Parts: sequence; structure tokens; C-alpha cells
Amino acid sequence: MKLIVVTGMPGSGKEEFLSVARSMNIPFVRMGDVVREYHSKSGTSMDVGEFATSERNTLGFNIWAKRCMERMSGNVFLVDGCRSPEEIKSFKGLTDDVIVVAIHTSPKIRYERLLLRARSDAPSTVDEFNARDAREMGWGMSDVISLSDEMIVNNDTLKKFHRNAKKLLKAMI
Amino acid sequence: MKLIVVTGMPGSGKEEFLSVARSMNIPFVRMGDVVREYHSKSGTSMDVGEFATSERNTLGFNIWAKRCMERMSGNVFLVDGCRSPEEIKSFKGLTDDVIVVAIHTSPKIRYERLLLRARSDAPSTVDEFNARDAREMGWGMSDVISLSDEMIVNNDTLKKFHRNAKKLLKAMI
Repeated sequence: MKLIVVTGMPGSGKEEFLSVARSMNIPFVRMGDVVREYHSKSGTSMDVGEFATSERNTLGFNIWAKRCMERMSGNVFLVDGCRSPEEIKSFKGLTDDVIVVAIHTSPKIRYERLLLRARSDAPSTVDEFNARDAREMGWGMSDVISLSDEMIVNNDTLKKFHRNAKKLLKAMI
Repeated sequence: MKLIVVTGMPGSGKEEFLSVARSMNIPFVRMGDVVREYHSKSGTSMDVGEFATSERNTLGFNIWAKRCMERMSGNVFLVDGCRSPEEIKSFKGLTDDVIVVAIHTSPKIRYERLLLRARSDAPSTVDEFNARDAREMGWGMSDVISLSDEMIVNNDTLKKFHRNAKKLLKAMI
């Protein structure tokens, strides 16, 4: 069983990568979804972030990696939303075959795409965008990216990105 | 005048990138060479690292960026050895047109290549290799990489890397 961990700065194209995986019937889970699911079931008054930390403190740092892996199926499984080198270590401690795939897009293009996407959590100013980047880097995301096993560049067209993502995933399954 | 700042983890292929630039007659400077040059001229008893910091404290944080830029010539100029986001800011404060190019190679392949290269500063164990990576990331190098404008992946053959490097540089000059 191969575990593919997808990472990338906000707006780099992780969702598009997941949509390619979906089209190839590769199962995946978003760490954030797992956390939110447990959070809403718990009936706690803590917010999601506090709850995630509290569960880590009570049940072990790797609790969210464990809960993601309970969802694993098939020969290849994809996890999205892993931010820190410590989280990568959690996965590597639970299974042998972990591959980290990073998606890189220049800050300029990421900013433009986030504005176009206009999701509720999209930044409305460059300062907000930079603050969000800084927050992700504060978790150690840039270390995860810099030490990734594979890197896909997404500065070009969506079509080209889809082709490259497909090629990479095909070589892995 | 366009300034291209090249970055990448140890063993990622920066030297090969510079050799491609050299073949295209693009002038370049290595920050480390500039520091070492000033260090040996100074006759100080400090080591190179201490001297670099002392000059920064006396003459301003951007002193090494300034001294690199004094070497600039032509329409396009390349700087190697920039480790931190603060150093990138120094360059951006001195000239408008700064492009950060990162080279990415997986840790596994970087380690193998460093062993093959067997330069005097090559790591002899995985622990040494990881410690060196950690040192570079401690300077903020992974933030520079993750926020780069361009990214070249160097997990394949040298020939392919040379071709991609040439293509990128051609588009810039």
C-alpha cells in the first residue's frame, strides 16, 4: 500500500491534483475533513483547531495520521492537508511506503488564482495572502515542500498541469 | 537589468544551473565568494561566518546584497548562495526586477549525488546530510524555495535538467 501525501502553498493547485486523482479512481482523504468530522461528532465547545490540538495531547501526536489511515483503501491512497514535517513523520511511522508530492506555483500566480477562485476563504488583499502563506510556513509547510520526493510545477495552463499530474500518478499506481 | 537569484537545497543542482548560465554567457556571482574575498582582504581574525555577520551589523543587513550587485553587468545577472527571505528582500530593495529560481531535487537523489560528487564538504552519512539540510532550512531556505517565482525539477537526467535550465534562462534574457 502506497501513501501519497500531497502538499503545496495555498492556491498552488492541490484541489486540481485531487480532481485528477478522483478521475483515476484513486481514493483520497483530506486531513481537515477528518478533523472536522471528529470535531462535530464530539459535541465539544472547543473550536476545530483547539480540538485538533487537544486530541493530539490526549491520544498522541500521530492521532490524525492514524485516523486518516483508517480510511485507507486500495493499493494507492492519497492524503491532502499535511502541513508539518512532524505530521509526515507520523505517517512514515505508520506505513513504509510514503511519497510526498509537492505542487509549486509562483506567489504571483497563486494570488491571481485565489482571487479568481473567490472561495469564501480567499484573501482579499496581498497582505492577507502573505499572512496566510506565513501561517502555513509557520507550521513548517515549506520544509515539507523543500524535502518532497516529487514536485509538480503549476505555473502554466490547467491542461498541462492535469497532464503532468496524471503522468506522475500513473507512474505510482 | 534583471537579477536572477538561484536557490535550492544542497545537491539540488545549483552548480549545474550556473554552468548552463556560463555556457550562455550570463554573468553570475556567488555570494559566498564575495564574502570570502572581503574576508581575506580584511585580515581579520574572525572566521568567515563571524565576519559576514559583523559586516552586516556595522554596514547594514543588505551589505552583502549590495556588494554582489556591484559586480552586476549586462542585462541579466545571476546570484547564487542566497539563503534567507531577508536576503531576498535586500535584493528587492536594491533593484526592481528580481526573479527567484529554485531547483528541486528529492532528498534521496540529492544524497546520492552528493556522495557521487564527493566534494570535500560532501556528507558522509545520512545524519550529516539531514543536519546540513536542517542548517539551510534554519536560515529560511525552504521559505525562499516555496515562494520562488520559478521552479525547475531536477530528479531526471542531467541532459533534461540542462535543457530545462536553458529553456528557462532563454525566456528571461
